[in-house]
Amino acid sequence: MHQDNEIFSAAAIRKHAQAVRAEYETTLKSFVDIPSVSMDPAHKADIMACAEFARNLLIARGASAEIVPTAHYPVLIGTFHRDDSYPTVTIYNHIDVQPADPAEWLHPPFDMVIDGDRYLGRGSTDDKGPALAVLFAAQYAYEHHLPINIKFIWELEEEIGSPSFEQFLIDQTAAGKLATDSVVVSDTIWVSREKPAIPYGLRGLQGVILRLETGVKDVHSGLTGGLARNPIGEIAKIIANAYDASSGEVHFAGFADGAAEIDEKELENFVASGFDVQKFKQAHELHKTRTEDAAQAAASIWARPTFEVHGIVGGYTGPGVKTIVPHKAEAKISMRLVPDQDPHQVFEAFKAFVHSQNPDVEVIPEGSLKPFKGEFKGPYSEAAAAAMRAAFGKEPAFTREGGSIGAVVSMQQVLQVPIVFLGLSLPEHGYHAINENFDWQQAMGGMVMFVEYFRRLSLLRA
Amino acid sequence: MHQDNEIFSAAAIRKHAQAVRAEYETTLKSFVDIPSVSMDPAHKADIMACAEFARNLLIARGASAEIVPTAHYPVLIGTFHRDDSYPTVTIYNHIDVQPADPAEWLHPPFDMVIDGDRYLGRGSTDDKGPALAVLFAAQYAYEHHLPINIKFIWELEEEIGSPSFEQFLIDQTAAGKLATDSVVVSDTIWVSREKPAIPYGLRGLQGVILRLETGVKDVHSGLTGGLARNPIGEIAKIIANAYDASSGEVHFAGFADGAAEIDEKELENFVASGFDVQKFKQAHELHKTRTEDAAQAAASIWARPTFEVHGIVGGYTGPGVKTIVPHKAEAKISMRLVPDQDPHQVFEAFKAFVHSQNPDVEVIPEGSLKPFKGEFKGPYSEAAAAAMRAAFGKEPAFTREGGSIGAVVSMQQVLQVPIVFLGLSLPEHGYHAINENFDWQQAMGGMVMFVEYFRRLSLLRA
Repeated sequence: MHQDNEIFSAAAIRKHAQAVRAEYETTLKSFVDIPSVSMDPAHKADIMACAEFARNLLIARGASAEIVPTAHYPVLIGTFHRDDSYPTVTIYNHIDVQPADPAEWLHPPFDMVIDGDRYLGRGSTDDKGPALAVLFAAQYAYEHHLPINIKFIWELEEEIGSPSFEQFLIDQTAAGKLATDSVVVSDTIWVSREKPAIPYGLRGLQGVILRLETGVKDVHSGLTGGLARNPIGEIAKIIANAYDASSGEVHFAGFADGAAEIDEKELENFVASGFDVQKFKQAHELHKTRTEDAAQAAASIWARPTFEVHGIVGGYTGPGVKTIVPHKAEAKISMRLVPDQDPHQVFEAFKAFVHSQNPDVEVIPEGSLKPFKGEFKGPYSEAAAAAMRAAFGKEPAFTREGGSIGAVVSMQQVLQVPIVFLGLSLPEHGYHAINENFDWQQAMGGMVMFVEYFRRLSLLRA
Repeated sequence: MHQDNEIFSAAAIRKHAQAVRAEYETTLKSFVDIPSVSMDPAHKADIMACAEFARNLLIARGASAEIVPTAHYPVLIGTFHRDDSYPTVTIYNHIDVQPADPAEWLHPPFDMVIDGDRYLGRGSTDDKGPALAVLFAAQYAYEHHLPINIKFIWELEEEIGSPSFEQFLIDQTAAGKLATDSVVVSDTIWVSREKPAIPYGLRGLQGVILRLETGVKDVHSGLTGGLARNPIGEIAKIIANAYDASSGEVHFAGFADGAAEIDEKELENFVASGFDVQKFKQAHELHKTRTEDAAQAAASIWARPTFEVHGIVGGYTGPGVKTIVPHKAEAKISMRLVPDQDPHQVFEAFKAFVHSQNPDVEVIPEGSLKPFKGEFKGPYSEAAAAAMRAAFGKEPAFTREGGSIGAVVSMQQVLQVPIVFLGLSLPEHGYHAINENFDWQQAMGGMVMFVEYFRRLSLLRA
């Protein structure tokens, strides 16, 4: 096959991107408008509708596609197959999304608004927008006969910790459907619009629900207060003894077991990445952070384990003060873990701590993801960095990510090929937040970047 | 006027009560079906509708009645006036109710169900059912020419701490409308169905909202966790440092200032009242209590101050674990206070404590009620005890109440007459709880008790 440098130049792809912009936008809107919320069982039909939509989308763009059932939600496999002798790259994205409360959003989260260059809707940046940009790039590469085979794995359980994904990988590998030379994951976030990032590490995650029931119904605090137990108070005590929320320091035994130390060189890299506490606060709209020191700040989100309370259910939460004693409380907690921590071990340590504090509290595990640490050297990382430079004219930083993608750990274990992160999202896009958005600059740049990345991979076995 | 003992005998009233039972029940249903929730501004129109209903009800039963506006919600004054030379008794009830979440109830809370002898609906026992029983008794006394004047004060702000009530009392006293020889409050709860109670003390209350905002929106705990502050964690820390939820012990300086000690004699009375921890747990459907000792248990709800967390707002409270860092948290807290504590002083002590812990936390006062301690001797208490015996054939206990009725403290200060508590509610009626209910036995017994109480009062100045 002949490679025409003209056809694969950044300028040509950019021109092509402009030509298909309207197509990209209407497709993205249809994609985002499906509320494929994996966390809420009420959205099961939407998950299935999203799988159907995705299959039709892959097929409409010229790929073969199938919906592969699993024990829970299905996974999509798509392929632009050229020739067995060519290298194969597999692109991982997820097309399930976080929940969204319409009351909190400026626009309805599942009725995507196109506001100039901005796309507002749940899933626009995490991860449907990037998934669609890669698909458009892959279609271009395929139609222009780039000597490479491109596969897609689109997951629908990423936001619930990928419970069926590893078995899917094992089964489909056995069936010969997942043979690949490398994987590229497009679900990560730059340091800033000015600083692209290629992360080489991810934190793991251990979710936990603490539940305490002290009665059958909420009771009157005048009639029973003093004698009745208060489950919210008891849960608050456990949380306060588990960690100091002011500093983030975690106190229970076994929490940091196995966590690799961060060395000076790594801290230097974090600062060199351009990580800036002021910009971080701006991007995430935070009033204050726990530290103002750039190196410590970057380390605390990329390389240190955390303890987090996401919410406490129970009691009265309406207007004013309703003087009841709650009869049950549930705390939603998770811990982000770093290489080489074992989520199961940390869960057991926390459970032992909770029971030493209060034997009546139920400790329920919720989603578990191992941390991931990859390499930032070698031909794939170099191709990724070169593609980023070519598309965005900027030098990427090699960083870590504070988030967790359980699927990545599974792919590393089952597929045993290099995994590279090429993300398109920006901090201000609001991953998991209200008013999540994506934008045309990143989508267009993404198309250029991915065509260039595919072109470079196609040469690796040339 | 002639007093016919036959007409005012327990047997005669009971017969009369049976004859008007259907009337009582349909009226109570119309009363309960008005969702007069004072706490939620969305129910303002219902509050006004409830005032109209109450005026029409008083007039239909033969009393004069007027709706007296205040700075917030109105108060009803009703009167069965016979003769200026007769003694006057004023009955206090409130006709506003607690909020109710229909999803949690077996029946819709504002569509009262009559299930045999039981009346299920919000406000049925607190306090519309008792209010209506007294009204029926007063009508009977009036129609049978008992030589007594009977006034009604029906409040619509009791559940929000009676913010306008004291000014109402001052203004209407000045206008000469509230002249009375004594007050009877019918808004308290028996020890058990077998043990009527005449409380002589009430706890006070200080509501507080703690509010902390650390950002503008919830953020991703992978992207920001470790660096972003967690307001729920910080609030939990304050709560855990303020009190030990396991024991109920409060730790911050100034909390117990002014609290009168409980003496041995009083503890003995509490036990003699028949207070029983097992029955208490059953009535309130509690699995465990903080103590199993009867005297300590009774003291902890009747005579000791408390610290209570009613709920924590903020973060994610849906199904599963959504890994966000919340951007704000609000804790709803109240403290029940005992004689002779000053709510304002306790609030200031708590505020100082919170700010010593975390200067970023807003500390907002919410409703404040002084504690009340009356007498359990003298002609009014004796008449009350005799009326209870006559109606229910049981010896009442003189106890305290753990709850707070701000209006009582105001009446004591402004009206300066004896105040007696004659309640009809039972622990299993579920004050402030889901599936609140009242029953015909208590309503009928209440009619007998109040006619007898009025008869005895009519003799006091005979």
